[in-house]
Amino acid sequence: MPTGSTGSTARGGPAVPGRLMAAEMAEQPAVLRRLLTEGAPRIQEVARHIAARRPRFVQLTARGTSDNAALYAKYLLEILVGKPCGLTSMSVTTAYGAAQDLTDCLVITVSQSGGSPDLVASTTAAREAGAITLAVTNNADSPLAGAAEFHIDVLAGPERALPATKTYTAELLALYLFAEGLRGVDGAAAAAGLPELAERVLARQDEVRQLAARYRFAERMVLTSRGFGYPTAKEAALKLMETSYIPALSYSGADLLHGPLAMVDNVFPVIAIVTDGRGGRALQPVLDRLKDRGADLVVVGPSAQVASASAGFALPTDGVPEELQPILEIMPLQLLAYEVTLARGQDPDAPRALAKVTETR
Amino acid sequence: MPTGSTGSTARGGPAVPGRLMAAEMAEQPAVLRRLLTEGAPRIQEVARHIAARRPRFVQLTARGTSDNAALYAKYLLEILVGKPCGLTSMSVTTAYGAAQDLTDCLVITVSQSGGSPDLVASTTAAREAGAITLAVTNNADSPLAGAAEFHIDVLAGPERALPATKTYTAELLALYLFAEGLRGVDGAAAAAGLPELAERVLARQDEVRQLAARYRFAERMVLTSRGFGYPTAKEAALKLMETSYIPALSYSGADLLHGPLAMVDNVFPVIAIVTDGRGGRALQPVLDRLKDRGADLVVVGPSAQVASASAGFALPTDGVPEELQPILEIMPLQLLAYEVTLARGQDPDAPRALAKVTETR
Repeated sequence: MPTGSTGSTARGGPAVPGRLMAAEMAEQPAVLRRLLTEGAPRIQEVARHIAARRPRFVQLTARGTSDNAALYAKYLLEILVGKPCGLTSMSVTTAYGAAQDLTDCLVITVSQSGGSPDLVASTTAAREAGAITLAVTNNADSPLAGAAEFHIDVLAGPERALPATKTYTAELLALYLFAEGLRGVDGAAAAAGLPELAERVLARQDEVRQLAARYRFAERMVLTSRGFGYPTAKEAALKLMETSYIPALSYSGADLLHGPLAMVDNVFPVIAIVTDGRGGRALQPVLDRLKDRGADLVVVGPSAQVASASAGFALPTDGVPEELQPILEIMPLQLLAYEVTLARGQDPDAPRALAKVTETR
Repeated sequence: MPTGSTGSTARGGPAVPGRLMAAEMAEQPAVLRRLLTEGAPRIQEVARHIAARRPRFVQLTARGTSDNAALYAKYLLEILVGKPCGLTSMSVTTAYGAAQDLTDCLVITVSQSGGSPDLVASTTAAREAGAITLAVTNNADSPLAGAAEFHIDVLAGPERALPATKTYTAELLALYLFAEGLRGVDGAAAAAGLPELAERVLARQDEVRQLAARYRFAERMVLTSRGFGYPTAKEAALKLMETSYIPALSYSGADLLHGPLAMVDNVFPVIAIVTDGRGGRALQPVLDRLKDRGADLVVVGPSAQVASASAGFALPTDGVPEELQPILEIMPLQLLAYEVTLARGQDPDAPRALAKVTETR
């Protein structure tokens, strides 16, 4: 069994497993606050310019954690702004060189580093094909920021841990402010309470540590949600896999009912992300079915939902619009990935420790 | 350990595990032949009507296996026809009632049964929002076929096994013929050799049975591909999970490199779908990395790729355009799901046997 790295990603000082990831998770309230004060006016301005160009439809381009932020933006833009969206299949451009007509299309590329060559190539190709291009990155000096016509900086500060945490929630908030801006709304007011709520959630690490004990010996997991919570399910699954290697499958609640529901009986523990709103209500039949079957169901969501599940983490969502809840929902799940990984004797900062050793052979 | 059902889905006669699935997999060459002769002219006509309406972009709506067919159509429409596409997030309409402007948008809903109420509701809403609507189903009398302005029948005949097989390949071919028709090409000529090649692939069940032995005790798997083969990776993962319950994760090759590659070292066996063409070439760096790391790599693709992997299934793809190869690629993987499930003492026809018992309590 791997015992984790000896701190190859830490710079100086003794190697404390998960030190970087813990520090970056803890920065999230400050990052959200900075984005709401320093970032929001510039985002409004970008949104105003783009709205004036009247995009008809939107393509979102991203990979990994940023791809889950892009999926969140798809829900925002379709539900709040009424623009049909698609997620880019990057090989269409980079491998097949397809010539698409992207007139009236807004192409949003989301990337923490802004440095991935394929994202730059795909954004450049979209711009040449007539698209309005917007890069959302954590690095204003990156090649991607330069390649796109417009740029939004998520202002999260350098991210050093391999599992992205603070840049994910910063991307979500930046995309929310942008989507609201597109329809002429200043989203900063509705989001004003988030930094303090984030502090309250992150202070409850002991609760999460107890939940983590449940998964210490898990060999697989299913995560599910509907609507605005679905990107959270996907991001939580990615986080758990990146850090702990537990195969974590994510399904929308509807897809879970249509197919793999049988798998969960006594075999797969389930984590459901239940938003306080329409997505959560649409998930109710799935929750009922899971309970009927005696599944091990852990809920992240409103306290009433947590109380009727096997266990869970009650989110303080009173007064938080459903579309903003994903920014809070992911935090206990980031903590869970961190705690499960420590409980399994691995290092959340160096999930590829094993691989790194292999590479040096 | 579950021992499989005693044949609850078989009608009359002795219960032979996997009888229905085996019969329907074996029908695929005949289904493809029927679609190319009886189905193609009508598909051309639908494509001509829709092309005349000059759709600017496309939304694809589906669930489960049909969702993988929809993803294949996304590659076809973006690469061959140059129309940007998105996959519908159904809850946007059914849970949130979003009002989108779908003028100039073609909405294609893919469903074997054409009976799912949410697909009908979503198609009806799209039509009211100004979209050109097309239903692709295996049932011309279904509510979905009635709700859409245009309909394409995939002519696969009744499907009784729970894991969809013949309707998947029929949907792929119908969508191919439609996409080619949209740009004024008669795809039936390029596809003419498929039924015979499908017969040759399906005749090699013994080879697949040998591969299946490899996964009898597997606790997890990763499937990967790029471009046109990526829907095959997703559909194969779904098939393996639906029948055998092995957690099967699917990633595009690029996403695998960006994140979860470390997981595969000595822990996850990998199946790569390598198309003979640009998608396969774009996957090459991923294959090289996997081999460097000593991963257990099984390839479905050209014989040279199979020869340099741990094992595999050589596809007869000479002269088959890359965009048509997915119709053949999935067949050995359907057989694999079937054989692995039998090897594990379960019934491929009744993957939910356990669940059904639970429901009657």
